[in-house]
Amino acid sequence: MKVCEIGEFGLIEKLRRIVDRAGVGLGEGVLLGIGDDAAAWRATRAIQLGTTDTLVQNVHFTLETISWRDLGWKALAVNISDIAAMGGTPEVALVSLGLPSETEAGGIEEFYEGMAECARAFRTAILGGNVSESPVIVITVALAGSVEEGKMLTRSAARSGDTIAVTGYLGASAAGFRVFAHQTQWPPEVHRPLREAHFRPQPRSDEGQTLARHGVRAAIDISDGLIADLWHLCEASGVGARIREMDIPVHSAAVHAFGEEAWELALSGGEDYELLFAAPEPVIERARRDIRIPVSVIGEITGEAGKVRLISRSGEEREVWRGGWEHFGGRRA
Amino acid sequence: MKVCEIGEFGLIEKLRRIVDRAGVGLGEGVLLGIGDDAAAWRATRAIQLGTTDTLVQNVHFTLETISWRDLGWKALAVNISDIAAMGGTPEVALVSLGLPSETEAGGIEEFYEGMAECARAFRTAILGGNVSESPVIVITVALAGSVEEGKMLTRSAARSGDTIAVTGYLGASAAGFRVFAHQTQWPPEVHRPLREAHFRPQPRSDEGQTLARHGVRAAIDISDGLIADLWHLCEASGVGARIREMDIPVHSAAVHAFGEEAWELALSGGEDYELLFAAPEPVIERARRDIRIPVSVIGEITGEAGKVRLISRSGEEREVWRGGWEHFGGRRA
Repeated sequence: MKVCEIGEFGLIEKLRRIVDRAGVGLGEGVLLGIGDDAAAWRATRAIQLGTTDTLVQNVHFTLETISWRDLGWKALAVNISDIAAMGGTPEVALVSLGLPSETEAGGIEEFYEGMAECARAFRTAILGGNVSESPVIVITVALAGSVEEGKMLTRSAARSGDTIAVTGYLGASAAGFRVFAHQTQWPPEVHRPLREAHFRPQPRSDEGQTLARHGVRAAIDISDGLIADLWHLCEASGVGARIREMDIPVHSAAVHAFGEEAWELALSGGEDYELLFAAPEPVIERARRDIRIPVSVIGEITGEAGKVRLISRSGEEREVWRGGWEHFGGRRA
Repeated sequence: MKVCEIGEFGLIEKLRRIVDRAGVGLGEGVLLGIGDDAAAWRATRAIQLGTTDTLVQNVHFTLETISWRDLGWKALAVNISDIAAMGGTPEVALVSLGLPSETEAGGIEEFYEGMAECARAFRTAILGGNVSESPVIVITVALAGSVEEGKMLTRSAARSGDTIAVTGYLGASAAGFRVFAHQTQWPPEVHRPLREAHFRPQPRSDEGQTLARHGVRAAIDISDGLIADLWHLCEASGVGARIREMDIPVHSAAVHAFGEEAWELALSGGEDYELLFAAPEPVIERARRDIRIPVSVIGEITGEAGKVRLISRSGEEREVWRGGWEHFGGRRA
């Protein structure tokens, strides 16, 4: 059934049921969900966090490669990743859907199932939003969270001499995108992790909070690519950085699929949703022991504001320009 | 200059400057604005509120009738109206813009100027969001606010015997839309209030808080139209309503422009962004004395769940179906 047959309120009712069934609607501390003028919840900590991200059909995704369910997971996960990069806890999501009237309602329900799955995994409530007509699918998720006073991670807190580290492995998401865009066939042990990395990114929510607890103060999530996001971090902090290509945790499935090129994907591919962070070395060491996924030290913060240097695997040091994705400007050199 | 020439980051920098210049960026209680992974602000009251609304080009607006500046005002104002309908204070807005790459950057700056004007008028901070490519203009504003424990207005709190009242005048926004869509010429004293009502709606933020302070508990803002929103209120509260057409405060400029039809616009036109509320009569009387705009008593809540009755100006009583705007379904009978 198409959304034009079921109508706005009929669709909202179906979506509300999915949220309730998944147990991510009303609950402890959550006072009002879908159906009033605004959502309401109880503040538990001193500092409130808010982030929002938009996915536009044929710009950020196409339904030829991603399933509705994965799209739902990802739309929420990328926002949880932003809250994770602040050291915060995600709490409440509001979802705005712009939909062509010919969209299948079943697709939107699948989308909500995927989003509810992600919400449950990261203990986030879905409290409403709105549905309206649009010539293409436009999904905007706004996510509120909170963080304790004095425990916030920011982009501007990196200091010269800090050690730079990153969670997990890089390059798998960009490799996954290539594999699916070009419909390349690979054995499941390569295929599956790349697929998961691209379509079901795991935001580092617990890890961000652990970093904050151990005294890390500077972090960013890797959405634009390692180099681009390191640039953002350095720019906001008024510092520079030197990283070693050899120490970059390139995902083994990406190496398997793309060989040497996997390093390029790890440096500039983006959408890894791992955390890139900086802190004095002992702080990083303590935090690392408390985090269950790999944490790799990849370099150090320098006092050379605006300069990001990369020591290649052959030992040469060169300055890298930030690159990374930019809307309207496309990918820069 | 087009946004594709200035680029995403160049545009964001320009928008950040507008926000700073207007004094609606960082400030007391606001810790992080545009430029980090998430916005951060200090919680001041027990209950957090969140709402979001999307405006899609050629669905909700067209640039042939609304200016960029008014569009900016309205995009924020409609969200402030939702927080007002909860008795809350608006605090922090996040803005997502989907833009065709040929969009004039100057237009977006005008949009932000209008939004910043509204933010300043209603003491709201604009703390970020994002900009991305899109085939049509899609604007999503998410707004967070707060309300004191025990002071929240909801749709579900109307009780049989309550008096129903409404702030301000109705029908002017829909009349304004007609005047502009059909480019009808009217003298300025008719033209101006209709124009203002449609393009520069005044959310009833202070009024919502005053209602809450005096003990009103049931409210909704009129976005879909008086009848449709009264239906929403009754449905959520499990009650019915009886209202008197004669007591409906139809805007005089709408009457001037459209005569008898103005009552239809007041009943079903929508986008008035006035508050419709219900409470015991003495509560309404006390609140009314403390509100500087007109408050009109238009009827009472009944125990007949799901029935909304209208006593026409000729004295006949009839049941009205909810009507009002619905996406995908269009306007219902």
